[in-house]
Amino acid sequence: MLPRGRPRALGAAALLLLLLLVGFFRLDGRPRGTAGLDGDPPGDHNRSGCHPPRPRPPKCELLHVAIVCAGHNSSRDVITLVKSLLFYRRNPLHLHLVTDSVARNILETLFQTWMVPAVHISFYDAEELKPQVSWIPNKHYSGLYGLMKLALPGVLPPHLARVIVLDTDVTFASDIAELWALFAHFSDKQVIGLVENQSDWYLGNLWKNHRPWPALGRGFNTGVILLQLDRLRQAGWEKTWRQIATRELRTLLATSLADQDVFNAVIKEHPGLVWPLPCVWNVQLSDHSQAEHCYLEASDLKVIHWNSPKKLRVKNKHVAFFRSLHLTFLEYDGNLLRRELFGCSSPLPPRAEQLQLALAQLDEEDACFQFRQQQLTVHRVHLTFLPHELPAPQPHDVTLVAQLSMDRLQMLEALCRHWPGPMSLALYLTDAEAQQFLRFVAASAVLSARRDVAYHVVYRDGPLYPVNQLRNVALAQALTPYVFLSDIDFLPAYSLYDYLRTSIEQLELGSRRKAALVVPAFETLHYRFGFPSSKAELLALLDSGSLHTFRYHEWPRGHAPTDYARWREARAPYLVQWAADYEPYVVVPRDCPHYDPRFMGFGWNKVAHIVELDAQQYELLVLPEAFIVHLPHTPSLDISRFRSSPAYRDCLQALKDEFHQDLSRRYGAAALKYLTALQQPRGLA
Amino acid sequence: MLPRGRPRALGAAALLLLLLLVGFFRLDGRPRGTAGLDGDPPGDHNRSGCHPPRPRPPKCELLHVAIVCAGHNSSRDVITLVKSLLFYRRNPLHLHLVTDSVARNILETLFQTWMVPAVHISFYDAEELKPQVSWIPNKHYSGLYGLMKLALPGVLPPHLARVIVLDTDVTFASDIAELWALFAHFSDKQVIGLVENQSDWYLGNLWKNHRPWPALGRGFNTGVILLQLDRLRQAGWEKTWRQIATRELRTLLATSLADQDVFNAVIKEHPGLVWPLPCVWNVQLSDHSQAEHCYLEASDLKVIHWNSPKKLRVKNKHVAFFRSLHLTFLEYDGNLLRRELFGCSSPLPPRAEQLQLALAQLDEEDACFQFRQQQLTVHRVHLTFLPHELPAPQPHDVTLVAQLSMDRLQMLEALCRHWPGPMSLALYLTDAEAQQFLRFVAASAVLSARRDVAYHVVYRDGPLYPVNQLRNVALAQALTPYVFLSDIDFLPAYSLYDYLRTSIEQLELGSRRKAALVVPAFETLHYRFGFPSSKAELLALLDSGSLHTFRYHEWPRGHAPTDYARWREARAPYLVQWAADYEPYVVVPRDCPHYDPRFMGFGWNKVAHIVELDAQQYELLVLPEAFIVHLPHTPSLDISRFRSSPAYRDCLQALKDEFHQDLSRRYGAAALKYLTALQQPRGLA
Repeated sequence: MLPRGRPRALGAAALLLLLLLVGFFRLDGRPRGTAGLDGDPPGDHNRSGCHPPRPRPPKCELLHVAIVCAGHNSSRDVITLVKSLLFYRRNPLHLHLVTDSVARNILETLFQTWMVPAVHISFYDAEELKPQVSWIPNKHYSGLYGLMKLALPGVLPPHLARVIVLDTDVTFASDIAELWALFAHFSDKQVIGLVENQSDWYLGNLWKNHRPWPALGRGFNTGVILLQLDRLRQAGWEKTWRQIATRELRTLLATSLADQDVFNAVIKEHPGLVWPLPCVWNVQLSDHSQAEHCYLEASDLKVIHWNSPKKLRVKNKHVAFFRSLHLTFLEYDGNLLRRELFGCSSPLPPRAEQLQLALAQLDEEDACFQFRQQQLTVHRVHLTFLPHELPAPQPHDVTLVAQLSMDRLQMLEALCRHWPGPMSLALYLTDAEAQQFLRFVAASAVLSARRDVAYHVVYRDGPLYPVNQLRNVALAQALTPYVFLSDIDFLPAYSLYDYLRTSIEQLELGSRRKAALVVPAFETLHYRFGFPSSKAELLALLDSGSLHTFRYHEWPRGHAPTDYARWREARAPYLVQWAADYEPYVVVPRDCPHYDPRFMGFGWNKVAHIVELDAQQYELLVLPEAFIVHLPHTPSLDISRFRSSPAYRDCLQALKDEFHQDLSRRYGAAALKYLTALQQPRGLA
Repeated sequence: MLPRGRPRALGAAALLLLLLLVGFFRLDGRPRGTAGLDGDPPGDHNRSGCHPPRPRPPKCELLHVAIVCAGHNSSRDVITLVKSLLFYRRNPLHLHLVTDSVARNILETLFQTWMVPAVHISFYDAEELKPQVSWIPNKHYSGLYGLMKLALPGVLPPHLARVIVLDTDVTFASDIAELWALFAHFSDKQVIGLVENQSDWYLGNLWKNHRPWPALGRGFNTGVILLQLDRLRQAGWEKTWRQIATRELRTLLATSLADQDVFNAVIKEHPGLVWPLPCVWNVQLSDHSQAEHCYLEASDLKVIHWNSPKKLRVKNKHVAFFRSLHLTFLEYDGNLLRRELFGCSSPLPPRAEQLQLALAQLDEEDACFQFRQQQLTVHRVHLTFLPHELPAPQPHDVTLVAQLSMDRLQMLEALCRHWPGPMSLALYLTDAEAQQFLRFVAASAVLSARRDVAYHVVYRDGPLYPVNQLRNVALAQALTPYVFLSDIDFLPAYSLYDYLRTSIEQLELGSRRKAALVVPAFETLHYRFGFPSSKAELLALLDSGSLHTFRYHEWPRGHAPTDYARWREARAPYLVQWAADYEPYVVVPRDCPHYDPRFMGFGWNKVAHIVELDAQQYELLVLPEAFIVHLPHTPSLDISRFRSSPAYRDCLQALKDEFHQDLSRRYGAAALKYLTALQQPRGLA
């Protein structure tokens, strides 16, 4: 028989008692006894640290994490770290990010667009911290930023009592709450939790005259630190570490391992400050790591630390294992981490809540349901995915703006050869594709050499290609006064970049007149093609039938107002008038209107933008020596899916109608012309 | 001061005592008290089941899992389940798979090529089990296969004492060892561990005259079952369930929920058999699930069960959360799960060990290092990824064989229109791309309608495109007597399939002569192109310059022996002689030589195969009415990377030399001709 009526209270009481016993035993019996500072193999740590029972902080307790992050590459690393954190976490998190301006720009946009529930972000300016550590000469590759960890107790909010400090090159393989729970084991005097260093560095016998900073035994590694901030502040942490560092620097001259040297010197002098963490919380894959003692015995790895300058390429016979854990998160779809925390009433980010409401109000029967749903999708955006240098300020400089997905990556090399100026490109990728993209750039000498091409990754989400959202991301990130709004399938004339800058200057664009410079577009249907090096060559190819004006066969209206016949003869820029369906490629000031994000996939995405320019009274000026040529390509997967769909066409019509209503609202009677033009029979236009 | 010298033995003893206490308390105090059968909300289960301390079986203990799996779609599901299992597991696993012939073929190949350390697989033939359950009328969508779970105690090896039985539609979100550890809580009489059913089905009040099978309260769900097999057998399980099922069927006529109805009827009569599992071990997302009571309170979900026929499309306000856990594994790179289990001395699969040795012997300085490394890579292979029907046996039938990656998916629809016969296609994809591929097929009426196209997914691994390994996978899976060895960028003449079958019959291929039928290849450089509907039309396009013979501009040698001039006039098949670099597209018997896997990426991959055919004295017979046309496409990412590399060309030369040495070994003096031909100046060939 099954027992039924046994009072639940009894079970609960037993459980409570059990938990108390567990707590008692662990506090009293374990962590101190297994500290490996006196030469015990680090592997011993996990005998007790990794076996059940596992402690956890109370459900929904907010955990604080601090990370110092600077530059483009570390920003990518930190995102992988955060993905691993979020994957396993079951608590709300508050990330305290000490960043330079590059990382701040990247991470602020990333987290705003990521909208992960129950994650709070605070930024601290690394620039302001520099004076606190810049007096310390340092030889470590982490530079000044590594040293900044020493200053955290003074930088973080005074009310913050505890924080876990992480290097950007660690990967979690478990719930950070288990690490947080280890604070409970600190005695009143213990204020820093650290894992023993898993190399012989601090033993000082690696080579002749090797003189490391002082440390207890093997010393400690500072890739993962538990800081009891309140007690550290009370104990005068800042004064202590400065005094000790100053003293050691007199003989040692510089730190070799940045903050870690100073932490170790302080601990050597005040060993009572440290609570040794089980080794599995910082498995160090440095070049001569002895971490094997740790992970071969452990049943469970918690945190991996890629603390070799070689990172994932470190030589280690088990590196394949660790790499697989890291690649898991490198390629993990970050959108999946937007999942809520059940049972913790952490409010959604404000924007997320509005969006959820708007999504809930959509009508699934609406022909445009998918469009509207995707328009409400906020795509995660990772700005400047690769190192990028700001363009020198030049009053007539122009950035090429375009967007692409994986199937157009092959265009990038040719585009770089044709356009020697700055570019702002939005790439629509999955997380895994973003890694492929990195490998693609690394393998290309042409692409690797450029620092003036900004690649902004917009992460895929939803069935439609959000072409105008992508264009807006690339446009918003253009940093020159002018932008050339192109498409990725076009190659510009080799001279175009120079010619545009000269034209902008000569035409006194911006100051004198509000104009959009039209770059006439051509196309080749031939897969192999010799690019014309001049307008004369282009015209010859046009006459021989090797080139056509763009979409001449299917949709001449799109470029008819450019007036190719006039262009042939033109020697000076000439004005043209807007007409229905006109969609030229144009050069405009950076502050031009944005693209209308309601248009997705294929149809009206550029047309609506040109209407907007016309409505705002931009002159349309065709440049006589400018041209671009469209190259043929296999059709994208998206286009074939939707071209054949009647529902898609119905929806496009509905969206056009709404667009015109919005125009009327914004521009009044002047906008009537667009509606009238649309209603005229096509043959007359 | 840090405590240093405290004897470690003391800590260990304390830990042991603690573990004993934990075991004692849990066995005695918890699970019985929380069984929710008498109407307690299921949420109560996890108060005790999900909080620390978490039990685990001894490190390295082998855990047994049984799954019934039949058909193409369930095979895909089971792989996702296994990926989730492997992601969290830290123990060796033995999977006992009861399969039909389709699932066996898929899963046997998959696991052989996956080579996951410390995973053992046994197959059991579902066909043999059918008589044991086919007498039970059943209305559930799982069909007879669901019922087979009842027969497991008799089917699994007699020495097997415990097993966890899983439905194919569950996803793990935690380590299965924690579930296994719950066996320890069973009393002597308890033999089945189950989670309460999270719907009102068995309460019998869903609609008027709703008559479910008898159950205790809400009953239990059988998506996750702990079976104490030894005691079940001793207790006469088989006789018991058969008697009870027989009796109930007299009035209820059929099962509604397959095995679950029978399990519940047995438990209703023998409640002492069951040990109720905490609800988090089977969170049921059925259509009217009450699982919310469970997961909103739990701090930790363990297993999700997609037990609605709608699966991931089930309506549930938290479905996005659960879907994100499931998608994690759906898209997870299975190669990453090849990681070893540290500290468990489980031997590698024999093939894996050989490969590791061979890999270790490679010379990193060798120009061909990447080629040799990738040749030793065993790619995971998922045969017949989508439902596929075997072709009816026809003596002259021919299967089109080709391979592709994501960037050629657009070719599939056109190919299906041009080739109405069977196809065997190898797709080189990541796990995430395989999901995109599924969506692509689902969105295409043309592709969805075909059951004679077999798609074999070969999972990406390594930097080179393993073109010949892919061809060999597709070739080995062709099930007709003849194969047409094509490439994905070619469209066959509409008549080709019929014409080939007629030709094979007329030429008495196979029986009378050993021949390869050559299908002449053409190409268009035009992106838009009207496909010729006859040889006459093709010749007209050739004359007008719209079409060319294949690679006429860059590499005419590749098809020169086909003798296009002769083909123009030919009315009957004609013999041609092999010459160096000849690489025609041919129709051959299925048992033709395989492609040489040493050639990867771009170069010599087809040439070597034709040499092999010639060496084995296949006649080369050109068919006068056959043709295929190559369509232009953007270059693949791989080709551009390697075409420019001198190391790549050096390596190709080395591989060619080795190939010729192998030819000499196998064919003796007769193979000299290939080496001589290669050494002749190109102009003379």
